[in-house]
This record gives sequence, structure tokens and C-alpha cells, in this order.
Amino acid sequence: MVKSQILLHLDTDALPSVFDRVVAVDAGVEHIFSYSGVTPTNVMALVHGCIFTRGPADLKSTAIFIGGSDVAAGDALLVAVQKHFVIDFGLTVSVMLDSNGSNTTAAAAVLAASRHLDLKSAKSLILGGTGPVGQRCARLLAEEGGLVRIGSRTIDRAEAICDAIRVQVPKANVEAVATASSNDAPDALDGCDLVIAAGAPGVVLLPKRHRVNCKSLKVAIDLNGVPPEGIEGIGLGDKAKNRDDMHCYGALGIGGTKMKVHKAALGELFLRHDATLNVTAIYAIARTI
Amino acid sequence: MVKSQILLHLDTDALPSVFDRVVAVDAGVEHIFSYSGVTPTNVMALVHGCIFTRGPADLKSTAIFIGGSDVAAGDALLVAVQKHFVIDFGLTVSVMLDSNGSNTTAAAAVLAASRHLDLKSAKSLILGGTGPVGQRCARLLAEEGGLVRIGSRTIDRAEAICDAIRVQVPKANVEAVATASSNDAPDALDGCDLVIAAGAPGVVLLPKRHRVNCKSLKVAIDLNGVPPEGIEGIGLGDKAKNRDDMHCYGALGIGGTKMKVHKAALGELFLRHDATLNVTAIYAIARTI
Amino acid sequence: MVKSQILLHLDTDALPSVFDRVVAVDAGVEHIFSYSGVTPTNVMALVHGCIFTRGPADLKSTAIFIGGSDVAAGDALLVAVQKHFVIDFGLTVSVMLDSNGSNTTAAAAVLAASRHLDLKSAKSLILGGTGPVGQRCARLLAEEGGLVRIGSRTIDRAEAICDAIRVQVPKANVEAVATASSNDAPDALDGCDLVIAAGAPGVVLLPKRHRVNCKSLKVAIDLNGVPPEGIEGIGLGDKAKNRDDMHCYGALGIGGTKMKVHKAALGELFLRHDATLNVTAIYAIARTI
Repeated sequence: MVKSQILLHLDTDALPSVFDRVVAVDAGVEHIFSYSGVTPTNVMALVHGCIFTRGPADLKSTAIFIGGSDVAAGDALLVAVQKHFVIDFGLTVSVMLDSNGSNTTAAAAVLAASRHLDLKSAKSLILGGTGPVGQRCARLLAEEGGLVRIGSRTIDRAEAICDAIRVQVPKANVEAVATASSNDAPDALDGCDLVIAAGAPGVVLLPKRHRVNCKSLKVAIDLNGVPPEGIEGIGLGDKAKNRDDMHCYGALGIGGTKMKVHKAALGELFLRHDATLNVTAIYAIARTI
Repeated sequence: MVKSQILLHLDTDALPSVFDRVVAVDAGVEHIFSYSGVTPTNVMALVHGCIFTRGPADLKSTAIFIGGSDVAAGDALLVAVQKHFVIDFGLTVSVMLDSNGSNTTAAAAVLAASRHLDLKSAKSLILGGTGPVGQRCARLLAEEGGLVRIGSRTIDRAEAICDAIRVQVPKANVEAVATASSNDAPDALDGCDLVIAAGAPGVVLLPKRHRVNCKSLKVAIDLNGVPPEGIEGIGLGDKAKNRDDMHCYGALGIGGTKMKVHKAALGELFLRHDATLNVTAIYAIARTI
Repeated sequence: MVKSQILLHLDTDALPSVFDRVVAVDAGVEHIFSYSGVTPTNVMALVHGCIFTRGPADLKSTAIFIGGSDVAAGDALLVAVQKHFVIDFGLTVSVMLDSNGSNTTAAAAVLAASRHLDLKSAKSLILGGTGPVGQRCARLLAEEGGLVRIGSRTIDRAEAICDAIRVQVPKANVEAVATASSNDAPDALDGCDLVIAAGAPGVVLLPKRHRVNCKSLKVAIDLNGVPPEGIEGIGLGDKAKNRDDMHCYGALGIGGTKMKVHKAALGELFLRHDATLNVTAIYAIARTI
């Protein structure tokens, strides 16, 4: 008899995310065990409870989802979780990481861009490119093959992210650009087909006049969900909306796709007992939707 | 496809109420997400997880229940929860408040009284009328239209509650009475059809001789579940039991109705996406049972 | 209509056991309410939530499972839970205690031994006999009727456990043996049919040469799941494996039976509203599998 699906929901915050639980219910997961305050230190028994309860043939019916608002804490937890697997005996379960929705959001944003551009040759600028979502967008675009400019207020941080991506993606064609003020925008945007704003809320990263003046620009995606817009003039609900001869997406416009990606990834978790769904794997799933 | 029902159970105590979870299961709710230690400060992300996960058409399948032993904390949490709704976009879910069972208990008690009395013209005395359940009973009776006397050991507190009820129910006919000792009972009871004891456990609020001597009294309801009785001579399990020519109810006698009211209210939550089930709405539901 | 099954899972640790939740799901329990950090001080409302929500006829559909890594804390919690039942009114639910898996492990170990030995007359040595699992094995064997030697590094502790078992099992034939070093093993083992190692991980309690030299020995069970073996030469996965002319069991070999016992015991919980499934009752269930 097939075991019922159990999702171990590990959250690094003080209260486990309602958002992630609702999505899991809507993805059809039968049992969700939510834990909050999970750290590399206290996670061992939780992982052992997954791998030592069902036989190897049934382990694909148990899976782990890592969430929480702190993306770095989620990254560290993923490493700790997989350290407690007993790989030699096949005692592993699939794991998905989506702290703060960063992986599914980045996958949905790049998927949206791919509908209008050939990402193998496109030139992209990521504003707020050193934050968790920005980094992930940059990595996915670098894997697609085009030139990716990573914008940050401090060039050193942008360079550091470029270096990290080059390690993850040897063929990456990435470059750091300083975007300390909006006066830097024209240079950073020069020749770009795509701009994604993934910065902190409350800051206009790209004023409308610079966006409109960039004649090469075909797609503009603003992932900021709280006014003012990160890319001036884009509506929260824009979904491939034509503004000033470019395809525009706002946070809610991307959000619907993000939700589909999230659910599809949860479904994939239960097909195997050894998947690691980090940003690249989640984007691969997104492309099949 | 209709989304499955999710009840977000927000408890202000350190451990989420087992009682409220069992009732939710027995009311047929499919998924219950229980959170404890919830405060106005940490509730925002929980509410956003409700309203930003399902489309507006499906939001009636998600609802919020607020419980916990501290009624004032529950009141404050209800305000905070609804502050995080995005009403302009229709992003709301239904909410039920029943901290310490106060709303369902008050509704069940007044419903019981209504089976024997015409509440439009009845005269009522609420002993322990300044506590959470007493206040709610008084408010419901005031809405029905009869005279309501609110008894308290300190007349000032009773006056304050009267003032509050007059704000909530403009037509209210309420008056404060001092019931510092049981010697005050004959005056307070004078001409009353109904007495409800809703005081703290361990105190006899109405000695038997005063109750029996009040010839106008037709219904006596004691909501105290722990001996000694709040109204002397009433049994814990009394349910419309005739004692001394009046209809008597004890805490367990009201409890069965309270449970039905609680389940019916949970069912109502999922019919709309914008209901607020506070004491008045819960009483309206109780009347349809 | 039959109420759906609710298991109140009370854990004395800071995070509720994933292991116990998965087993409950796989035993077919419909709703599992997991609580962590449960103590005799905060458990009353949780118990009341069980017994005051469903009518007496339905109370068998609610049950309590007590777990957590601290066996003594679990024992204390069981006492506290049952103190809050209202026995005179039949307001009780069934309770199972299995802190750290100690009861199901002991039951599975003794069940394994019973397949090869007549426990009424067998002589047994329990190494690490003063720990939680060792004590429980000793008690079950004493109830079966054979001689049971309880080995401990300090003879005083072994004597104390013997005294405790004599109180629980008046017919018990138990004796304390000092097993401070492996040099004590030959004397302690003398004439034994069965040896069970239930000590702390990381210590070899019985070197291979002593085991092989004990010609009376027919069954050797090592409950230690972490290398090195508690009984040298026994494999983790041994399940009635013949080694040196004796039937050998390792922790994983016992583990499969333990899991079946655990699930069967959970099933029994919901047949009545007043069962107490401690080690003796769990062993009785194990014998029916």
C-alpha cells in the first residue's frame, strides 16, 4: 500500500509560515508537520524521524520543505538536514528550499522573461542583485547563457556575488555594476533586453525616464510588492502588460506563476526520495509547467 | 475545484487549546493550523499567509478562529487581524472570536433563556456581570430589548459596563446594581424573570433562600462549572430542570448547546470570506439551530 | 456517526518527535495534535480539552500518546494526565506511554527472545539493566517467570531496580549483578539463556570472547543502534541471525518489530476509552501480533 504523503515543514522563524502551509495543502499534500525555530543544532532528530520510520521503498512519501524569512538561515539548514541522511543505506528524503519564497520567485521571474526573450543571448540587469532573490535570478540567467549585470549600491558586494556565481556556473558571463544612485542607471542598462528589480521595499531603483530612454529594453520585472515601485511606472498586477513598448511585470503578476511553480515543485518532491530542489531544480520544474 | 477548508487557529495562550481543535475536527474542518503565543505584534505574517495564497474566489475556504483563556487579549487580536486585511482588493477571510468560550457560552445561555421567556420584555439580572461572559450575556439581552441589571461587587465597574453596552447597543435598557454581598440580592432580583450567574468560580453569588423568595423569577442559569454553585441549589447538569417552580440550567446543561453553537459558527465561517463572528453574530447563528 | 480519531501527542521535549508522528500517520490515525514542552504543570487544560469535548460514548475516538527523549519525564506526565481524568463520570481517554521508544523497544526485544526460549524458565542477563529500556525488559521477563539478572556498573543501582521490580511484580525472581568491567561478564552470564544489552551507546558491554564462551547462551540481543556494538560481533541488522550457535538480534533487527508493536498499540488505544498502555500492556499487544 502506498504510504500517505508527509511533508516535514521546517521553518527558521519563530512561527511557521501560514503561506507555505496553505500552498502545501493546495498542492494536495496529505499531512504537513510544521516546526518553527529550527536550526542546524536541533534538526537531527527531526531528520531521523523522517528516514528511520518508513522503509527505503516508502521514503519517497516523506519529504522536507525548508522555509522562513531568513534566506541564509535556510541555506544553512539545508546543509544540516542533508548531513543527517544515511546515504550509504539509501536513507534519504527529498528536500525543497524556498526561504522567503526566494527560489520560486526567482524561477517565476526568469520564466516570465523567457517568454519574450531568448535568454541564451539576452543581456540582463539585476537591480538589487546581491539580495537573495536577485542572486538567484542572476544565477538562473547566467545558466541560460546571456550576459548578466549584477547591480548593487556597493560594487564590492556585486563583485563578490559575481565570483560566487562563477564558481556555481563556470560558463557564467556576469559583471558587476555600481548602481548607487539612479544616475548610474543609463550606463548599467546600456544595451540590456531585460531588467529585474529585486531590491528591498521602499526604494525606487529605476526611475521611469531612464527605463523609457533605454531603447534596447524589452522586458521589465519589478518584484517589489510594497509601494513605491522598484521600477517606476510598473503596476503591481502587471502581467506581460505593454508599457512604453516593453513587457512589464509587477510582483502580483509574477506571484501567480510563483504559486504554480511552488505547487509543482512540492509535487515533484514525492516522486523520488533523493531530490534536492534548490533554485536550479525549481527553475527546471518551472519550465515544464 | 473547491479548495479544502483551512482554519487558522490563533491562540493567545502558550499552548493552543485542545478543546477548540477537537470542536473544529468535529465540525468537519479539514485542516487546522494551530498557533500559540499569538499577539498583535506577530500576527501580520499569519494573516498575510491566509489572504495572499488563494484567489479571492477561494478565500471563503480559509478562515480564522481566535481563542485562548484571555478574553481581552483575544479582543485585541481580532482588531489586529482585521487591520491586516486588504479590504480594497477583497482580500479578507472570515474570523470567529471565542476566547475562553465566552461568546458561544453567552449565546447558549441567552438562547436557553429565550426558550422560556419573551426577551423583548423580560427583566434580567447578570451576577458577575462585568466579567467576559457576563458582559456578553448582558449585551445580548440588551439587544433583545428587555431591562438588564448588571451586578458587580463594585458599582463603578458595573456602571462602566453599562456605559459600554449603551455605546454598542443604543436602545439598551441597562442599569448597574451593587451585589457586594448576598444581602443585596433581594433588591437586585426584585421583579426579575431571569438570573444568570457568570462570576468567578468558588463564590456563591446567589444563596438559595433569596432565589426561592423571588416570586417573579422564572429562569436561573448558573455558568459556574466548579463547585460550589454560583446559584445555590442548581445542579451542574441541570437543563431546563424544574426546581422551586423555575427553569434551572447548570454549566453542563448549557455546555451541550454551547458546543452546538460553536460547531454551527465554524460552519458559517466557510460560507463567506468576510464574516466577523463576534458575540452578536454567534447569537444570531445560535437562534437558527 | 463515529467520530474521527484524534491522537493528542504530548512530548516532553522542546520539539515534538517526528518519529512518533510518522508512526501515528502510518497507523491510520486521522488527526494528530502534537504538543511539545508538556509538563505536569501545563497539561491540565490539554487533558480537559480531550474529556470535555466529546460525549462519553465517543471518548474512545480521542486518545493520548506520551513521548519524548526523557523517560522519567514521561512517567511523571502519565501520572499527571490521569490525575485530570474525571473517573466518576467516565470522562477518561486511553493513554499510551512510549518515551524514547522504551516500551515498544522492550516489548519487541522480549518478544524476539520468546520466539526461541521458554521465558517461564529461561535465565536472562540484562546489561545496562538500570536504564529505561533495560528496566522494562527486566520487568517483562520477570513477569514471564524466569530468573532475571540485572547488570549495572554499580551494584547498588542494580539492587534498587530489583527492589522496584519486586514491588511491581511480586513473583519476580530477580537478582543484581555488578558488571563494572567486562571481566565480570563470565560470572554474570553463567547459566544464562538470554542476554540483552540495553546500555548507553558507545560502550562495548559484552566482548565477543565472553559471549562465545558462554555455552548456555541461546539468544543475544543488542539494542544499541550506534557503533561500537554493545554486544561485540552482533550486526545492526541481525534478525534471528545465527552467529556462534546463538540467535542474534541487532537494533535494526528489533526495530522492525518495534514499529509493528508501536502501530498495533496505537490501534488498541481507539478500541476503548480507558486503556493505559504502559510496558506490560504493550507487551501483551505485541504477543498478539
